[in-house]
Amino acid sequence: MNAVADWIAVDWGTSNLRAWAMAGGRPVAEAQADHGMGVLQPHQFEPALLDLLTPWLDTGLITVVACGMVGARQGWTEAPYTPVPCAPLSGRLKAPPATDPRLDVRIIPGLSQVRPPDVMRGEETQIAGYLASDPGFDGVLCLPGTHTKWAQISAGEVVSFRTFMTGEIFALLAGQSVLRHFVGEGWDEAAFTEAASDALSRPEALAARLFSLRAESLIADLSPAAARARLSGLLIGAELAAARPYWLGQRVALIGAPGLSETYGAALAAQGLLAETADATRATLAGLAAAHANYTETAP
Amino acid sequence: MNAVADWIAVDWGTSNLRAWAMAGGRPVAEAQADHGMGVLQPHQFEPALLDLLTPWLDTGLITVVACGMVGARQGWTEAPYTPVPCAPLSGRLKAPPATDPRLDVRIIPGLSQVRPPDVMRGEETQIAGYLASDPGFDGVLCLPGTHTKWAQISAGEVVSFRTFMTGEIFALLAGQSVLRHFVGEGWDEAAFTEAASDALSRPEALAARLFSLRAESLIADLSPAAARARLSGLLIGAELAAARPYWLGQRVALIGAPGLSETYGAALAAQGLLAETADATRATLAGLAAAHANYTETAP
Repeated sequence: MNAVADWIAVDWGTSNLRAWAMAGGRPVAEAQADHGMGVLQPHQFEPALLDLLTPWLDTGLITVVACGMVGARQGWTEAPYTPVPCAPLSGRLKAPPATDPRLDVRIIPGLSQVRPPDVMRGEETQIAGYLASDPGFDGVLCLPGTHTKWAQISAGEVVSFRTFMTGEIFALLAGQSVLRHFVGEGWDEAAFTEAASDALSRPEALAARLFSLRAESLIADLSPAAARARLSGLLIGAELAAARPYWLGQRVALIGAPGLSETYGAALAAQGLLAETADATRATLAGLAAAHANYTETAP
Repeated sequence: MNAVADWIAVDWGTSNLRAWAMAGGRPVAEAQADHGMGVLQPHQFEPALLDLLTPWLDTGLITVVACGMVGARQGWTEAPYTPVPCAPLSGRLKAPPATDPRLDVRIIPGLSQVRPPDVMRGEETQIAGYLASDPGFDGVLCLPGTHTKWAQISAGEVVSFRTFMTGEIFALLAGQSVLRHFVGEGWDEAAFTEAASDALSRPEALAARLFSLRAESLIADLSPAAARARLSGLLIGAELAAARPYWLGQRVALIGAPGLSETYGAALAAQGLLAETADATRATLAGLAAAHANYTETAP
């Protein structure tokens, strides 16, 4: 083990496994693999983790704190959801059936909501990381991604949240539907903003506007870049229409990859809302560090 | 050639090629292949057609009338769109560069609309077939399918139309998205009707309701059959919300595969609208026969 590192932070999602050797709250080494939860059977999680961490391990015991889909029912072990309203890290960490004597693995549970039904795994850690640097935040956090989350935060708790499949639907339509022949590389900011505003003001027309991208490409020479931006604008605009109670008149911060956060920020700016932005990886690490600090404080 | 058949009707879509040996307006033999337009290069269309028709051909010349994506830009030859408003078969049939002396192939052009941009290929033939049996029809035809079309008909003309990608989006979400683990076989009529009505009355909430199917499966034991019916209901309800000007207070006939037409019919019935239904294959054949009759009347 790197002499200065005293624990390991792990973000284990559906497609990726990322690990950081940590000295307190600071990463001193990083490693990643494509052994996401989606391609692993339960008995394959420990070998996949050891494979990645071996260069960092010595004979002593080290704590590994992990977040994400690794704690799903189809993951390494199920870390049962904590129901909202609650602080994002208030659930009990779950130890999977690891057998290597050098590892003390703890998985952060996700959050659930009964009405309307919703779940998250991983984003609760980013939310906790964001709140670690601004404990008094009162407002809404938006976490854009494959499944974008909107979470209402008050007094350090997640009060309610809502998930939108916007990123996944964009990928399916742009990559696998009949629109794939017309949606190309590049971007047209004006086409994005216009489509987002249009979908926001008339969300009921979304279903009719998607095929128009094909028709306009055929009969009106819509460019592949404009088609891409417009498809994104229609879907994000429809999301913003459904998420209106979350952002209208609220303080909003975006936690996500820089490009995608900018896109959401532009759509919100067109509605007169200037959102703050925060880096997703930094939030994940700060959240894992907060969970690690809680764990070591309360461990016997 | 079957002695009684005097021409050949062909429905050539993206995924399938179907042909009928016809005696006037009556099919006397049928054949099909999976050589859809989507898997063929331009030079492969004639061999694919000959492959299917050879048992029916003798030394004489025979007319083949075809509709569908075979006339698309990526098809055998482009049959340019006829702009609406127009009678569904008012465009000029297009001959592809066939070289076999036994074939006189004619492709029916599709329809286009400038505002809002839209196109159809194949459905114009079904519309013509429907109108052949009810020339005075004044109302709306809905053709459910991968890309559902709604067409306003008056005085024998298609006045306007609109396409919805509902069928394709359902297939992508049910088969390839994160929802695929929760959407199963079977059907739950009550779940369908409730979801369709809900999406119709609050279409702006659609983006938020899709992920709920996953959450409800995880935390509230939503059955795979109910998830399937609810996904279908949400998408068809959103389509009906966007298509409202087409059906509200109108006479509506559904032309489609029996199961899918029933599903649309149930969603419309819940809104107090009793739609008529017509068989899609019968409409296609009647439309091809009408195009054949026009062609032989006007041919030199």
